[in-house]
Amino acid sequence: MSLPQPSERAFVPFVSVAAMMKLIHQVGLDRMLRDLADYIEDDFRRWPLFDKTPRVASHSTDGVIELMPTSDGALYSFKYVNGHPKNMRDGLQTVTAFGLLADVATGYPMLLSEMTLLTALRTAAMSAMAARHLAPQDATTMAMIGNGAQSEFQCLAFRAICGIHTVRLYDVDPAATAKAMANLRDQGLTLIPCKTPEEAMEGAQIVTTCTADKQFATILTDNMIGSGIHINAIGGDCPGKTELHRDILLRSDIFVEFPPQTRVEGEIQQLDDDHPVTELWQVIAGTAPGRTAPAQITLFDSVGFAIEDFSALRYIRDRLEETGLYQQLDLLADPDDPRDLFGMLQRARP
Amino acid sequence: MSLPQPSERAFVPFVSVAAMMKLIHQVGLDRMLRDLADYIEDDFRRWPLFDKTPRVASHSTDGVIELMPTSDGALYSFKYVNGHPKNMRDGLQTVTAFGLLADVATGYPMLLSEMTLLTALRTAAMSAMAARHLAPQDATTMAMIGNGAQSEFQCLAFRAICGIHTVRLYDVDPAATAKAMANLRDQGLTLIPCKTPEEAMEGAQIVTTCTADKQFATILTDNMIGSGIHINAIGGDCPGKTELHRDILLRSDIFVEFPPQTRVEGEIQQLDDDHPVTELWQVIAGTAPGRTAPAQITLFDSVGFAIEDFSALRYIRDRLEETGLYQQLDLLADPDDPRDLFGMLQRARP
Repeated sequence: MSLPQPSERAFVPFVSVAAMMKLIHQVGLDRMLRDLADYIEDDFRRWPLFDKTPRVASHSTDGVIELMPTSDGALYSFKYVNGHPKNMRDGLQTVTAFGLLADVATGYPMLLSEMTLLTALRTAAMSAMAARHLAPQDATTMAMIGNGAQSEFQCLAFRAICGIHTVRLYDVDPAATAKAMANLRDQGLTLIPCKTPEEAMEGAQIVTTCTADKQFATILTDNMIGSGIHINAIGGDCPGKTELHRDILLRSDIFVEFPPQTRVEGEIQQLDDDHPVTELWQVIAGTAPGRTAPAQITLFDSVGFAIEDFSALRYIRDRLEETGLYQQLDLLADPDDPRDLFGMLQRARP
Repeated sequence: MSLPQPSERAFVPFVSVAAMMKLIHQVGLDRMLRDLADYIEDDFRRWPLFDKTPRVASHSTDGVIELMPTSDGALYSFKYVNGHPKNMRDGLQTVTAFGLLADVATGYPMLLSEMTLLTALRTAAMSAMAARHLAPQDATTMAMIGNGAQSEFQCLAFRAICGIHTVRLYDVDPAATAKAMANLRDQGLTLIPCKTPEEAMEGAQIVTTCTADKQFATILTDNMIGSGIHINAIGGDCPGKTELHRDILLRSDIFVEFPPQTRVEGEIQQLDDDHPVTELWQVIAGTAPGRTAPAQITLFDSVGFAIEDFSALRYIRDRLEETGLYQQLDLLADPDDPRDLFGMLQRARP
């Protein structure tokens, strides 16, 4: 189709999936995971500045569609993300996402980006950044329970950010473990496939759970968790979806992103509303303790929060100029006279 | 830049501003306004089916950025829209918008569309559709108070849908009136520029107020409103922004879209929380009366609701195939094996 040409202001830079993949390879996955962890950490440090609301969820039988907005007063972001565990059976992604960054002063969008890949990266960077504050300092081995689409990103982020060199992988489906093993070979990690979650836990100082069932599940039972462990629980992230036995929670010091959201969506939905938790941003800002003793069990009950997406979009925005990996999208109507939207339409008459 | 080619499923149809303008001209503005009114009316008739939440607003000194999601259980939509009255001074639009339609069963987006133009059309169609139920049947003349970007669309929708043939225009800025007059010539309307709002009201059976100041304003005072008038108040649409004197509200039968939202954002924010209002969908569904007497003052206190955008996006979706006026956007990551997002990224390595 041939279309009238819009003005400069009408355009919003768009980072497609193909452009995002090129960007990741150009920056390098390791550097990008470390950079994202730093961007998120920077934004968590100035946590009180942000507009914070629990995400806006539209639940249906098979899944959920969510909008996750936030703002620091200068920039605004939101992410659209779905979670449909049954999608996999039909050859579709469980989670797809895209996001937008906008200028608070004008309300004009500044960046539209795919976020399926970017969410995978920021989730892994977030997990490893939290572990940098909470896991035992000498941790070398991680148990990776659930070897789906997020698992490789988790393993590589923990290697790049926390110095993990051994990963013990388990999934109810051995094919998922085989897939993750194949993807992670030649990445400088020692990979050990395991037949049970118990086996995966052997010698691990960190355990990451990332399974996708939309139900109360017990991926980890109490007897599997020894002292000194850091648990990175990322699969339990909506009402009715948990991964840990309640008894583990009672023995752990629990760290969360945004309590009003985590109490509804996280592992702690199994606990009383007033069960004590620590907000991770306070550990980062130095106003609350993280790990205080070697025997302590720390749990990062992660559900994913809008500020992490804000940081990730901010990072992509900062890379646009140097990489040129975007296209201009004619998303905004921009008449010469802003009151003359109708005139613009009329002048476009064929 | 040269990029790896994504698979079919990765694509989401995108309707740019240029494509939307072509679509409007191809369908014809009159037909499109009438069609949109019918789509909105159809969705209002099945109102109880919809997920309804007040919009999610992020307020700042100069404006607001809002997300407006809804769903009928099969389709999901949301709109991003800003409102920045001060933008005009910098040559920017007060309101820009885009929206998305998605499949509830999979969470996958089905359509991304510009909505600056589409919102102008759906707002006008909504106003005229409401007036079809509420205004005097023999109305021929409308006072158009506020001659900004929305005004021409309002005038044409009232002509196409309600049979209005005379419009009396007033704006604090005579240049705005001159702009609207120029745009509306040769559209089959008798146009009368007015020097005061009082003059604009002379002989009008319908008055539309559409001004953009973010403040409590009194565009209409009580003495200006005679019996039998229908007031279409669309400019008062956020907390602290109203257009009508409170006394007018006390003399009117008030019709609203979604009361929890209108009580915060509409003219009725000036009234007690329990002041009686009628939900417009009930008038359409035949379960509540609309206009019942010639002397009655009816007021549509419109703030814009997510279902109207849902209807508009549904309409655009239904036009895609016949018009071909869209481009495919590589918005979704779609690995062959849905668990193998990492493998897809690896295979894209240059």
